[in-house]
Amino acid sequence: MAEEQLLTSWRDAPAKQAIVAFVRRVVGEDGTAAVPVEDRVAVFDNDGTLWCEKPMPIQLDFVIRRLAEMAAATPELRDQQPWKAVSANDLAWFGTLMTDHYAGDDTRVRELLRGILAAYDGISVEEFEQRSNSFIRGTRHPSLGRSYVECAYAPMVELLDYLGANGFTTYIVSGGGRDFMRPISRDMYGIPRERVIGSSSTFTYTSDGHHGTITHQPAADYVDDGPEKPVRIWNRTGRRPILAGGNSNGDVAMLEFTQHPDTPTLRLLVLHDDADREFAYTSGAEQALVRADKDDWTVASMKDDWTTVF
Amino acid sequence: MAEEQLLTSWRDAPAKQAIVAFVRRVVGEDGTAAVPVEDRVAVFDNDGTLWCEKPMPIQLDFVIRRLAEMAAATPELRDQQPWKAVSANDLAWFGTLMTDHYAGDDTRVRELLRGILAAYDGISVEEFEQRSNSFIRGTRHPSLGRSYVECAYAPMVELLDYLGANGFTTYIVSGGGRDFMRPISRDMYGIPRERVIGSSSTFTYTSDGHHGTITHQPAADYVDDGPEKPVRIWNRTGRRPILAGGNSNGDVAMLEFTQHPDTPTLRLLVLHDDADREFAYTSGAEQALVRADKDDWTVASMKDDWTTVF
Repeated sequence: MAEEQLLTSWRDAPAKQAIVAFVRRVVGEDGTAAVPVEDRVAVFDNDGTLWCEKPMPIQLDFVIRRLAEMAAATPELRDQQPWKAVSANDLAWFGTLMTDHYAGDDTRVRELLRGILAAYDGISVEEFEQRSNSFIRGTRHPSLGRSYVECAYAPMVELLDYLGANGFTTYIVSGGGRDFMRPISRDMYGIPRERVIGSSSTFTYTSDGHHGTITHQPAADYVDDGPEKPVRIWNRTGRRPILAGGNSNGDVAMLEFTQHPDTPTLRLLVLHDDADREFAYTSGAEQALVRADKDDWTVASMKDDWTTVF
Repeated sequence: MAEEQLLTSWRDAPAKQAIVAFVRRVVGEDGTAAVPVEDRVAVFDNDGTLWCEKPMPIQLDFVIRRLAEMAAATPELRDQQPWKAVSANDLAWFGTLMTDHYAGDDTRVRELLRGILAAYDGISVEEFEQRSNSFIRGTRHPSLGRSYVECAYAPMVELLDYLGANGFTTYIVSGGGRDFMRPISRDMYGIPRERVIGSSSTFTYTSDGHHGTITHQPAADYVDDGPEKPVRIWNRTGRRPILAGGNSNGDVAMLEFTQHPDTPTLRLLVLHDDADREFAYTSGAEQALVRADKDDWTVASMKDDWTTVF
């Protein structure tokens, strides 16, 4: 019993067949030796892989609202980016920022990062958690007619459950903020907060002779994207995964790292090709798609492989 | 059934009584509401808390042997620290280094750190793991008549088991190297590698079009000691622990952080007062002992509370 009935939103098509064949092999149902449970590590990108990232990453909406508050409170900020774009309601400034990034120009990424870091400077980790939690649960997606907390892809949540039922330990490995996702990761994905890996600012601990406080500092610790993803996976788990799921160029290193000389592996790429039910785009996934074709990664088409998206 | 029979090496004295009363309260056996399983996070320092750290931290022996290899291969190194001390067999240079550190002078700590970082520059994480694993399993403690892999304190291993049996998730939070402890943490403590937190050098990921490699870089990522311990616990777990165990000044911040407004907590300090069976010292634990007395932390005397040490 490999619990395939959990994959109800997956059509009986090549992607599902590859997933099921892989899991059967891992648990030894195909007659080969089972992979030890402790080695069954599966890692998933978040934005665009587990939940929707269009028209903009959900965390960017969170940040823009905070930047707007800051610009309202401190008018001088409106002369500099990213507060200038927020004040002018210039969403294109944000919308094309990742296009620049993928083209190798990180000027605006750095300006945005500076804004994000300033936005939470000095906030305690508990207060950040409250803000993130209220935002994700209390804000509606601009076009999908649902709250952000309902924007997880149902087939991917089923896949996480299916892997868990087969002895896998699942991790989120997000380019977005680790602490942004933690308050909702269990409710949305069944993944506990200690298994969320993601970008982080630096923190400082201040003793008070009582319980102490950890606060955000205005400097990035690391950005968990591209070649940093395998490093962060190693730091957290001490293992190479045997399954990785992603959807963009920032996931290529993580998927490449998911390789063993003598253990089966699965690399899964979510393809956004469903303009009716979600969005259709390959911008930012060009290298990932080339690699998927070359190395025989499994591609999951939202349109063809999923009976439902949400 | 709170599994108290697991604590066979603990005398029926105040430390054991405090531990048992705390765990009974956490699981709700005293009639109060149980603490949710996901909040039962327990963190333990490693050197001097879970295994022996005298006459020198075990990882220091590992490093010194590597530095000696380097000095033999590259004679110029013998003119600079820490290779100079190693070549002159000047163990006092290392032995008094932490005394300087606790007195606020980190000159030699920095020199040693530079040596450690150079010692593993460019080594893959897999190769480092092999070296560490062979060393800990294959090297004998200089005076205790046992291999390093047998230098864990039996009462503390029992405590880890007892906590696990009561729904706790246990973590090692070591000032020493995370990747140094990982290959033996399950065999020695029953703690899987993903629950080892410790100091780390920075890593870089190199793509090779196949499986990629993570290698050590000659720069520290962070040193997991003092106020950095709560930060690293937060980064890994996203929670405040409810139990912390330590033995030195470097653990004070972590023990202080183990405090909740409405959840029971236990702070445990291992006191090295048993020159016959292990070692007797309070150097490096002065502030911790003051704080234990002031804040009513539980002190475990190796001499009075433990029937066996190893």
